[in-house]
Amino acid sequence: MLVALDLQHRKVWLVAAQLALVLGGDGTLLSAARAVAHEGVPILAVNLGSLGFLTEVPLSEMYTTLEAIDGCDCPTEQRALLDCTLFRNGNKVAQHFALNDAVISKSAIARLLDFDLLIDGVFVFNCKADGVIIATPTGSTAYSLAAGGPVLMPSVTSFVVTPVCPHSLTHRPLVVTDKATIELKVGTSDEEAYLSIDGQVGVPVKQGDHLTCHRASHTVKLLRTKKTFFNVLRTKLKWGQR
Amino acid sequence: MLVALDLQHRKVWLVAAQLALVLGGDGTLLSAARAVAHEGVPILAVNLGSLGFLTEVPLSEMYTTLEAIDGCDCPTEQRALLDCTLFRNGNKVAQHFALNDAVISKSAIARLLDFDLLIDGVFVFNCKADGVIIATPTGSTAYSLAAGGPVLMPSVTSFVVTPVCPHSLTHRPLVVTDKATIELKVGTSDEEAYLSIDGQVGVPVKQGDHLTCHRASHTVKLLRTKKTFFNVLRTKLKWGQR
Amino acid sequence: MLVALDLQHRKVWLVAAQLALVLGGDGTLLSAARAVAHEGVPILAVNLGSLGFLTEVPLSEMYTTLEAIDGCDCPTEQRALLDCTLFRNGNKVAQHFALNDAVISKSAIARLLDFDLLIDGVFVFNCKADGVIIATPTGSTAYSLAAGGPVLMPSVTSFVVTPVCPHSLTHRPLVVTDKATIELKVGTSDEEAYLSIDGQVGVPVKQGDHLTCHRASHTVKLLRTKKTFFNVLRTKLKWGQR
Amino acid sequence: MLVALDLQHRKVWLVAAQLALVLGGDGTLLSAARAVAHEGVPILAVNLGSLGFLTEVPLSEMYTTLEAIDGCDCPTEQRALLDCTLFRNGNKVAQHFALNDAVISKSAIARLLDFDLLIDGVFVFNCKADGVIIATPTGSTAYSLAAGGPVLMPSVTSFVVTPVCPHSLTHRPLVVTDKATIELKVGTSDEEAYLSIDGQVGVPVKQGDHLTCHRASHTVKLLRTKKTFFNVLRTKLKWGQR
Repeated sequence: MLVALDLQHRKVWLVAAQLALVLGGDGTLLSAARAVAHEGVPILAVNLGSLGFLTEVPLSEMYTTLEAIDGCDCPTEQRALLDCTLFRNGNKVAQHFALNDAVISKSAIARLLDFDLLIDGVFVFNCKADGVIIATPTGSTAYSLAAGGPVLMPSVTSFVVTPVCPHSLTHRPLVVTDKATIELKVGTSDEEAYLSIDGQVGVPVKQGDHLTCHRASHTVKLLRTKKTFFNVLRTKLKWGQR
Repeated sequence: MLVALDLQHRKVWLVAAQLALVLGGDGTLLSAARAVAHEGVPILAVNLGSLGFLTEVPLSEMYTTLEAIDGCDCPTEQRALLDCTLFRNGNKVAQHFALNDAVISKSAIARLLDFDLLIDGVFVFNCKADGVIIATPTGSTAYSLAAGGPVLMPSVTSFVVTPVCPHSLTHRPLVVTDKATIELKVGTSDEEAYLSIDGQVGVPVKQGDHLTCHRASHTVKLLRTKKTFFNVLRTKLKWGQR
Repeated sequence: MLVALDLQHRKVWLVAAQLALVLGGDGTLLSAARAVAHEGVPILAVNLGSLGFLTEVPLSEMYTTLEAIDGCDCPTEQRALLDCTLFRNGNKVAQHFALNDAVISKSAIARLLDFDLLIDGVFVFNCKADGVIIATPTGSTAYSLAAGGPVLMPSVTSFVVTPVCPHSLTHRPLVVTDKATIELKVGTSDEEAYLSIDGQVGVPVKQGDHLTCHRASHTVKLLRTKKTFFNVLRTKLKWGQR
Repeated sequence: MLVALDLQHRKVWLVAAQLALVLGGDGTLLSAARAVAHEGVPILAVNLGSLGFLTEVPLSEMYTTLEAIDGCDCPTEQRALLDCTLFRNGNKVAQHFALNDAVISKSAIARLLDFDLLIDGVFVFNCKADGVIIATPTGSTAYSLAAGGPVLMPSVTSFVVTPVCPHSLTHRPLVVTDKATIELKVGTSDEEAYLSIDGQVGVPVKQGDHLTCHRASHTVKLLRTKKTFFNVLRTKLKWGQR
């Protein structure tokens, strides 16, 4: 068993052969998931903060949940990851996995960014906007939702491309099959821009950079307990009860 | 070869073993597709009206297109259909295939309708709204788009459930895998309501009725020519050019 | 003192020289307001149903509120009314006052309606949509909000024109000064359409009809008690608390 | 006559007693307007770039327009300005006039900002978002529109407060009378944030800062030629033609 204590970031990871126990909020889970997903270890997320979309077990139920899991063949839910690579002048400058989303956005005082979107190498549209979000189903209830995107059920095998404050009124979120490669080309611009991964990793982006995203070959495995996805939607988003 | 002339509805169908030639607008294609899809015959849609999403060949190119198709092994694009059944008191009262969408909506002078949405029998939310749209990827650029829904690429294996003018501000379009069964229960209400299929077939709906939709076992096969889906999006929706 | 009992519609009105006491929900207040507003009598709305935007006093506080009002010079809030006239072939076919909104909408099985919007006789836009809402600030939190419109504070001297599911993606709610005359011309169409006033009065609309709306010369006077407009917004719309 | 050449920013200003001639795009007009508005000089904006909302005269018509204006009593359109002051620990740290908007936004790699909105000192809501826009009617067709705000006709005596990507789904643009004082309090946060004025002036904002906006006592006077506001809307936003 491996115990990792990351005190500086107030994260505690307990990585074992059987499961990874993540204590924290959705943010903690996102960074933990990126770190351990490739090991194939299922994750149990215990919520120390306010209700999260991903961290469903409250601290008070941690021990009973661990006991229930121990020795049983608990169901896990597979969540897709985006494999994101940033290219500059043909060279790879950054590579990250995202459980929620990859976002290119302008800095606060910059003006509009200019993007081309390509799907499997085919030009889709040019967009002037504050930014563009490429989100997984897991991330569809995070930043993409705030930018006007739809909710994707976790079992949906698609990603969603959601422009942030597009200059043209006709742009709409675009749902793309997860078999496709999604590419963003950052147009000629003097503006400051950043790529962020799950709202956590920030990489400066320069004009002419290409971001390429496709479905990662591995997934994040979340241990499922009693709550369904829709329970969480109703509680978090206040979707109507009967 | 079978030639069907439906003069009353100003539609001309020419159904052959090799292909079905549909002359008209998107509306004509929708009704033709529902009629011939189960035969597995590919459809070539020739546009007699304004530019449609589905009817891509202009009349002036009909003969050259037909000659190009003849004898060749042209690519066809498979479009999913919704198999929609309306139940009342346990009895089936209507059954239709939809290429675009199934919509339950209130009449003009009625007040809000009340719906429960269930996915694979699991309760998702209750919604008070003017109506609810269940759309295929093909239909995602039609009424669902006007109601605030996302665009689904034709290759996406999902449907989208889009509420129309929901009373609660938290409802959002929901993208659902096409392996699921989507069910709408019309709540207790004295209001007049209708089920419409592709905006064409109207069936009165009564309180307590259930609408069940799942992916049909057959598809609509559209003969593909030069234009891509994204060309049409850019032309119809004025999505940005580079 | 005049007591009016409208048992068929489950409304009880108690109209006195000093004030009109309306017992019911927002719907009851809307019809009462249209009926008594021209008398200049202030209205106290007591809420018998679920929390309303307009009916702020709960039944349990009715007597203490009436006692507090009696003899005092209570503040009233003036709410603008729309004076709406429907013309056909140059003839007036209907005239109504609206506290919330005037809406022209298609019937459930009709296709898109076609409208021209004119402000003070100047052509603004043509719109194909399910309908168009012309709302007062009071009505901005009702149907217009569900259709994507903004919230107008009660003190705003404007109306808002909100298309319902417009076919073109570029249409947006338009805020118009209440000094202007707003005119809707229903385009050539075989479709069934209705004008509704505050969601209550339904008038059939034919192609070529003109709806003209301007601010009525009288207002609705609501007796104000402790709750502010923003308290109600936070409670009803779940706008964030500090 | 005063001729001001600002070569560094590629702006040319020609300020005379009779009128200020601004040559450039909307951005040039915005900075010129803030600079000369308090002089009460009417502005004629000649468009050197792509079609703007504000710069309606094309270069080819500059001389004929100037001749037509000379000696005539041309109509001018008054546009409201926001008088914006940023306070820190009770001290004024910046004061600017805005013709379009005042925006507080997070930097690209920051997380959500936390705001309180107050109208005339009364708490309206708390909002977690990428930013908040306070826009004039002139600015309602700029950034606020991209963030989902309504269009305000120039004659509307209101401002609009539009959250940018609010975390809660229930927030909506709020139209506020221009007689009110609008106040934003930036909540406790370690995040980087900036105040920008008309997308041009950037002022760092710290937690606890207050931004106060009210209608300026002077206006911007735009010389009106033939084009109406709605002509521009139809051309720029592609609002429907008849």
